[in-house]
Amino acid sequence: MSRGRFIAFEGGEGMGKSTQARLLAEHLRERGLTVEQTREPGGTPGAEAIRELLLAPPGEGWTLEAEALLFAAARADHVARKIRPALDRGTWVICDRFLDSSRAYQGVAGGLGDDAVRALHEFGSAGLLPDLTIVIDVPTADVADRLAARDGATSDAIGGRTADYHTAVNAAFLDFARAEPDQFAVVDGSGSVEEVHQRVLETVGYRLAGTG
Amino acid sequence: MSRGRFIAFEGGEGMGKSTQARLLAEHLRERGLTVEQTREPGGTPGAEAIRELLLAPPGEGWTLEAEALLFAAARADHVARKIRPALDRGTWVICDRFLDSSRAYQGVAGGLGDDAVRALHEFGSAGLLPDLTIVIDVPTADVADRLAARDGATSDAIGGRTADYHTAVNAAFLDFARAEPDQFAVVDGSGSVEEVHQRVLETVGYRLAGTG
Repeated sequence: MSRGRFIAFEGGEGMGKSTQARLLAEHLRERGLTVEQTREPGGTPGAEAIRELLLAPPGEGWTLEAEALLFAAARADHVARKIRPALDRGTWVICDRFLDSSRAYQGVAGGLGDDAVRALHEFGSAGLLPDLTIVIDVPTADVADRLAARDGATSDAIGGRTADYHTAVNAAFLDFARAEPDQFAVVDGSGSVEEVHQRVLETVGYRLAGTG
Repeated sequence: MSRGRFIAFEGGEGMGKSTQARLLAEHLRERGLTVEQTREPGGTPGAEAIRELLLAPPGEGWTLEAEALLFAAARADHVARKIRPALDRGTWVICDRFLDSSRAYQGVAGGLGDDAVRALHEFGSAGLLPDLTIVIDVPTADVADRLAARDGATSDAIGGRTADYHTAVNAAFLDFARAEPDQFAVVDGSGSVEEVHQRVLETVGYRLAGTG
């Protein structure tokens, strides 16, 4: 039995990551694969409990360092208890956000630095990386419209942040993709959900050819 | 106004750390100092919430790495929100457990290594160390009697551990003290609470002479 493949969706808020992750998982299941669809922060009982602490800090709000440690702890649990076991038994894993969200939000936009975020991931999760990371890219103006249209309760925002912060985050994801083109694929997120889904399928088929 | 002093109590379970921390805090207050008495994991709303996750993991139990990241996150919050501000305004801080508990439990007995635990502390809390760390040392047989006598609900045990594990923890604290004699003081924890308290006072007076 071959090892499963690990695909992460990344990008700023309102890019349609969650929807595209779900549609890809459904497509792969229809093709006969066993697929685990999951998300970060969260994905296991332990990591979901940490997610609650991140979304609603009990005190004055976490320092950047405490926040990064909590994300790394949640990811360590998620990797050890769900992602690695799934991959080992041949299941494909489709994850809505993974390490690169910590790199973009805490490392770049937050100013902690990429080395620090990667070091925490190396320690917590032995540095596990996706086989493919799909960055959904949507022009900033379109994203503002999408976010305005959707219910705030479904937002995956961690803390209130400024527009500059989100611009820095989006630029960071594209920088990561440019720096490691074998690891990342940037998918144009404009147009309808179905149009983007078709682009995702082309990308996955091309990048992971022969495995689906 | 001078900076406050930071004193941590360390040692295995049943050594009387909490009692001695409280008695020292009361003594220093009687001498006119402003004293913050606190504990780890915990000490702030955020860190206490993380403590709950450590004591009662929501899932299958934390991996060693996730546990170390959670301790470091709790400590980062505790240091940033309580300990540093207190020291900066001239308050003395007496803490029941601090970094050396992570070094002993996760680093040595758990096998993660001292460098890893120190690196997390450097990242999360800029490496803040106590001015003095008092290791309470009690012969193992006496500790077993004390632990057997006390209510399990008050135990600060993190997870069920074997006797070998506790022996390794106690040896680790003494090793730390031997390696950094200026930073640590080992206090004989045998005899009555009052006898140990007097030894603590002698140690604090001698080590931090002229500041009390």
